This record gives sequence, C-alpha cells and structure tokens, in this order.
Amino acid sequence: MAKPRTVERLVVIGGDAAGMSAASQARRLKGPDELEIVAFERGHFSSFSACGIPYWVGGQVRERAELIARTPDEHRERAIDLRMRTEVIEIDPTGGRVRSRDLESGTEAWTGYDKLVIATGARPVRPPLPGINAPGVHGVQTLDDGQALLDTLAGTDGRRAVVIGAGYIGVEMAEALLNRGFEVTVLNRGEQPMATLDPDMGWLVHQAMDGLGITTVNRAEVTEIRTGTDGRARAVATRDGLYPADVVILGMGVEPETTLARAAGLPLGEYGGLLTDLSMRVRGHDDIWAGGDCVEVLDLVSGRERHVPLGTHANKHGQIIGSNVGGGYGTFPGVVGTAVSKVCELEIARTGLREREAAAVGLQYVTAKIESTSRAGYYPKAALMTVKMIAERRTGRLLGVQIVGREGAAKRVDIAAVALTAGMTAEQMTALDLGYAPPFSPVWDPVLVAARKVAAAVRAS
Amino acid sequence: MAKPRTVERLVVIGGDAAGMSAASQARRLKGPDELEIVAFERGHFSSFSACGIPYWVGGQVRERAELIARTPDEHRERAIDLRMRTEVIEIDPTGGRVRSRDLESGTEAWTGYDKLVIATGARPVRPPLPGINAPGVHGVQTLDDGQALLDTLAGTDGRRAVVIGAGYIGVEMAEALLNRGFEVTVLNRGEQPMATLDPDMGWLVHQAMDGLGITTVNRAEVTEIRTGTDGRARAVATRDGLYPADVVILGMGVEPETTLARAAGLPLGEYGGLLTDLSMRVRGHDDIWAGGDCVEVLDLVSGRERHVPLGTHANKHGQIIGSNVGGGYGTFPGVVGTAVSKVCELEIARTGLREREAAAVGLQYVTAKIESTSRAGYYPKAALMTVKMIAERRTGRLLGVQIVGREGAAKRVDIAAVALTAGMTAEQMTALDLGYAPPFSPVWDPVLVAARKVAAAVRAS
Repeated sequence: MAKPRTVERLVVIGGDAAGMSAASQARRLKGPDELEIVAFERGHFSSFSACGIPYWVGGQVRERAELIARTPDEHRERAIDLRMRTEVIEIDPTGGRVRSRDLESGTEAWTGYDKLVIATGARPVRPPLPGINAPGVHGVQTLDDGQALLDTLAGTDGRRAVVIGAGYIGVEMAEALLNRGFEVTVLNRGEQPMATLDPDMGWLVHQAMDGLGITTVNRAEVTEIRTGTDGRARAVATRDGLYPADVVILGMGVEPETTLARAAGLPLGEYGGLLTDLSMRVRGHDDIWAGGDCVEVLDLVSGRERHVPLGTHANKHGQIIGSNVGGGYGTFPGVVGTAVSKVCELEIARTGLREREAAAVGLQYVTAKIESTSRAGYYPKAALMTVKMIAERRTGRLLGVQIVGREGAAKRVDIAAVALTAGMTAEQMTALDLGYAPPFSPVWDPVLVAARKVAAAVRAS
Repeated sequence: MAKPRTVERLVVIGGDAAGMSAASQARRLKGPDELEIVAFERGHFSSFSACGIPYWVGGQVRERAELIARTPDEHRERAIDLRMRTEVIEIDPTGGRVRSRDLESGTEAWTGYDKLVIATGARPVRPPLPGINAPGVHGVQTLDDGQALLDTLAGTDGRRAVVIGAGYIGVEMAEALLNRGFEVTVLNRGEQPMATLDPDMGWLVHQAMDGLGITTVNRAEVTEIRTGTDGRARAVATRDGLYPADVVILGMGVEPETTLARAAGLPLGEYGGLLTDLSMRVRGHDDIWAGGDCVEVLDLVSGRERHVPLGTHANKHGQIIGSNVGGGYGTFPGVVGTAVSKVCELEIARTGLREREAAAVGLQYVTAKIESTSRAGYYPKAALMTVKMIAERRTGRLLGVQIVGREGAAKRVDIAAVALTAGMTAEQMTALDLGYAPPFSPVWDPVLVAARKVAAAVRAS
C-alpha cells in the first residue's frame, strides 16, 4: 500500500509585502502537492506599495493599479488560496489554528496550520484626541486609506491642508498636497522636522520646506480636531494655535499591528513588535514565522532591537520566510537604519545612529558636517548637499551618516550603509574607491570629504 | 650660541592634482620656516581638472578658468615656489637634485632637494602612425591640448569628427563633439566600445551610441592619418575603410609619464608606472615619493599592481604624500577599480574585475546579469539599467560589478566598491540595508537583485 502523501498547510496572515512574498517564495520551492497555502487579508488589496501612496495622492502616479504588484487573482493563479476581506481574529498557537471572519458575511471559521506566517503590518499612530475620527481626517497606510483621501480631496473646494507629524509620511504628504495646489501646514511635535535626523540636519529640511511655501510649526502639541456643524473636520487646535483645515492628514508614524500576537502570548519587544530569530521564526515557536512591519529587527550598529517599518525590509523578510518555510534557507542579519525620502526637490537620507541614539546606547562619538556638491563644481546642475557623519570616539568606527541636499544627495547614503554593515572606520572610509567623473561627483566625493573630517575629529578625540 | 634652524627643501615635479595636493598638504603641516617648497610645471596651468576637458569642449563648461582649482599665483600666496613652464629634465637621486629647463629662456639649473615628489602624470598613447602629428589631430590630456582643439574646431567649417579609441576619453569626446554639432565616428580597436567592461556590457554602450547617432566601428585598426595639401588631417584610414575627418581626436588611453624616473633608475612596474610602498614612497628610496597618473597602485581585488589614471586617486595620493612629507601620517591601501562615465544620457560604471581580469589572475567565477529600474517602476522617470555582477566560485566573494543604464545607474556602483573593499560575499550583499523610497529605488534595489541572482549562481557552482 502506498504511503499517503503529506500535504502541509501554510497559513499566512496579511496579504501585503511580507506575507505574500513569503507565500510566493514558498510556492516557488514547493508545489501544491507538497504545500497548501492559505492567506488571509482583511482589506481590498494585496501586494501593494504603501510607500507609493503619497505619489498617487500627489498625482505623479496616475492609477491606483500601478501601486499593486500582484492582484489577488494573480496570487490565486499561483495556487495560493488568498482570501480577501477576511480578517484573522484569533491565533491559537497551542491548537495550531487561526480563527477568521469574513468581513462581508460575518461568518467565522477555524483554519488549522502546520506553519504560520504573521505579517499583520503596522497601524498609524492615532492618539485619542477629540475629533480624530471625524470625516476629513485621513491616515495613509493602505490603498483604502489613499482612496478615501482622494475622495475627500475631490469633494472639497477648500484649499487648506493640515498635516500632523513631520516624519517621512508627514513630509511626503506635505509635498503631495502642495502638488495638488493646497496650502499646507505641517504641525510637528518635535524641535525640527524629520525627528529621524539630528535637529541641525532637520533644520535644513525646515528651511527648504519654508522655501517651498510649506508652513511648518515646530513644538506643536495637537489637542483637538475641531469639526463643523456637518461633523467634518474644520480645524486643528494645538496648545498654542488654531489651524483651519479642509483636510487633515495623520502622519505621526506607525506602530506594529500585533494585537493578535499579543493575545496569543507571542513574544513582543520594547516597541510592541514580534521578536524573531535570524531565520524570522518567532522566538520559542518552531512553527510560526513573522516579518514586515509587525516585527522588531536587530540594529547592527547599536546592537538593540528596533521597529523599522519599511517595504524593503518587509520584502526581504518575506523572501527569507518563504525560503525557510519552503525547505530552503535564509537569514535576516539585521538593519543599519537606512532611510531616504524627499520633499519636492529636497532629498533626505540617514543611516546608522544619530547623536541621541548613539548616546542612548552608551557610545561616545565625534561628529563632522560638511557641504559639498553632487557633481564637479564646474559641471552644470552641481547641487549642494550637507553631509553629517558620526564616528565612535577612540575606535573611529562609523556610527551614522545623515545627508540633506538636492539631486544626487539621498542615494549617496548607501555608501555609508555598506560601510556600517562592514564595520568600517572613518579612516578606512577616506580611502574608498568611489566613482568619480565630473557629471557624477567632485574629485573628492562628499562622503569622502565628511569621512576625512570626522577621521580628523577621531584622532583629536 | 643658538643652533641654526634647519629648513628642509621639498621639490615637486608636476603642478597638477597629485603634485600640488602634496605641496599644499605639506605646507598646511609645516610653515616656510621649516620647509621650503619648490614645484616645477612644464605647462601653462596648475591644478586643473583634465577630466573636465570633454565638458569644456562640449560646451557644458563655459570657461577654461572653471577647470582650474588653483592658479599658480594662488599657490605662491601659500608660500609654494611654483615655477611654471619649467621642465625637469633629469633626476639625480644620488646627488639629491633635479635639473630643470626654463622653457621660455632655455636656461638650465640644478636644484637640490631633501625630499622629492614625482607627479609627472600620464601621456596619451600616440602610436607612430603616418600623419599622427599633423595639424587637426588632437589629444585631450592638458588644458593646452583642450585649447588647441577648441581653436581647431573654431577654425573649421567641416562637421566630421573621427575619434580614435572608445574608452572613457573616446566616448566622452564623442559626446562633446556631438554636442557641438559634429557627425561623429568612433574607431574602436576592440570587439565593443568600453574595453573596461565585458563585451556583453560594452554592446549596450554600442547600441546606445548608435541611438545617439554616433557611428561606432569596432575591430578598426587605424593605419594612417591622411593629410590634405595644406598638411592638415583630412581622413583616418583603417585596414578596412577610410573615414573623412575635419578633426581627429586621440582617445587611445594614456600611459605613465615616467621617462625621467626610468632614466634615474627608479623602480617601474609592468605598466611602466613607478612602484611605491603604502605611504606612496618610491620603493628603495626613502626621500622620494610619487603619486597620481605616473604610479601603479595595488588592486585590492586581484592582488596585482595596476595603472589607474584618475584624478580622484591623484588627489588622494597627493594628500597622503603631503601628510607624510609634512610629518603627519597617511597610507593609500589601493584601489578596487571603480570608474564611471557617460555618453549623453547613458551612464556607464564598473568596479572590481571584469571576466577576463578575473580569469587572468586565476580566479574561477560565476556571473549574473539583471535589468531593473532606478526608481520604483510606477514612479515617473524610472530609468532602465543593466547590472552585471561577478562573484568568486565557492567563496562567493564579490569580484566585480558593471552597470550600464540611464539616470541613476552610475553611482550605484559605489555600493559594490565599498562591498569589494570590505571583502563581502554576494550572499552578504543580499541583506544590505540600502536606501529605499519610490523616487529613489525599486523596493529591491537593482544591486540587491543582481546580488541575489549571483548568490544563487554561487550556490549552484
């Protein structure tokens, strides 16, 4: 008698980058005769680029469909049983099953798993302020959010937008609304925009936003969103002022969406994200993996866990989880904290630790800041940039780099990202053989100039 | 009785990047009461950007003066006795002196040195073909060369330019002449343009040059430059054809200008460049340093000496020599072979070894080639690029990367340059935390896509 073939079942919670990358990679390695794959997504869309939403709202991306890497049907053609508008409402790790609810019919059901992938993403920070749930107040986390915002914009004759928060989402949405002809006010809790930069670098962003006609209010503590007689948002009140608004955008960052994981007793870290081993398996649970915006990752520079919600990490996590679930092998060693963004022509980049982060983990450091250009000074369109570099005292090990400037500034941060990964010192970086030709760089690349200056500071420290 | 103060004399041969960087850095560390600095330059210009000449000829750079970083008088204000139009014609290492000739008056003189810096640069390859010295045939190594070419261009009504050579100088000059309205033919000895790339990548350059209206003739062996009755160049003859020309550009590369060094018995390498230790001191000569286009440098990937004439290295050499001569400390560990260039909108980059170079030093390797875009596919102006990656068999160590594409392609090679310096494997590179946002990169940066593909090839090797 032939032994019955074992078909394992993989269940995936979350139909975006991490979850569907995991499902797709597992499917590449194992066919439906070896592995059944069931994926649950509570929204209307799968595998979309949340990072692209500001550009869709701003008009650079015409169609919502362009932001969708793979539709539910395309996943189904690859033998992935993707159940849309179906929310997982409970994980039972002991029983090896999840309970789901069909959001259209309300029907609930249990589904058993041999292997589980949690890719529940992140949710926007939404403080319990009066009026925060009023019509006209919009988060921008999902395509559903983006569509709702576009509907609001189409339905208003007003031209005043207030963005709460001046991080990546905040500044990108400020650009988007500016591009749509709105008067934009950004209410920023911090000392300067872009709290992921040091304040001296954030100040450069503030200046540039001023130049673009975006009003930025720093140290703004929002107390209330005021509504009109129709219940719609009409203004945002802070401790110090009142800002009329025809639309309000929430850009206060996100936090891991780990409500289910917490209820199931899975291990969470300091920032509320799931904790995994290097293979992205949830610690203490051999049959559960997690990836994307719902996990914490190791910061290779500080040696601490961090929450870094970025599509590029989510895709890597999914790829690695899919390999491991599918019988291959992969690990995610951690991040160095690279992030790039822009507001109109201004490019903003960082990697590694900023000053406060370095101090917080007990590192002593020196800093250097330089101005240079993206191309040889005599070449047309040579654009200014400021590079700040932080290195450890005594060892000279590179700790972090921040760059703010015009065209050609942001992606130079990759040089530092690789150097951080390799544990290079500033002195070693001064000898890097970087690409030079007048249209692409001054004869000393700005990163080399910064490295020379910070290396001198290390020697003097 | 007070002991008389010792004033050492530093003599520098060559007034461009390496020589004057060395002089300037030495002066920063030691004042004129400690160190006398005498520098000899046979040309009319000091500290100029030879790399900028194609853009001056092409019209992007308006004034010759923009290419001069520091004039002779500016050097003299810093207490550097820079003697222009004065050629050193003999080095006497035993006597510790150099003989120079004033090119205006013909006067010769000996000058003693305590420390000597040789920065004699490179000279264009100029094969002994009939007609090669005719009027209308131009090298583009110095500002004098550039001015002579511009004079020729201004004096001709003809519109046919022939460029001999399809390396960096050749393709950049093809662009320059195209920008000035010339019909450009490039005669290339090799299988494809850009012999510093593998032929499959060079073919992409060939295609793009075709698209720009530049005629490229591969496997062209130039036999003669034909002249008219006025003695001026009129056509270039190859074994297979005759190409009418109103101006002829020599772009066949350069070789170290080490005639003096050779006559003085200083150690030269396989490519005719001076050999130094890590502090840029000429081997076996404690009081002589050398840097810039006249030296060979260690290739950190192959472990061999190479000749890499690039302004960025020359500046680093000068800085390091000046530090060591001035009582500081610096070393030049070597290069990984990074070079970037462009032809109109096409960007071209390489670092590390190409296939033939890897094979030549006994390395077994695998390769991968991918196409991707500079930005998220849905973002405006997302531009195509091709990335080829070479990794060592078994170890997976990165050996080289070549990139050909549109805007945003070339400087991505810096990621690989740092990875090569750090000795990373392709597998390690797949985890690099590179900057991601839709205006700057797809969610998988093209370099990561290439790393994944070549890492898979390593596993299969």
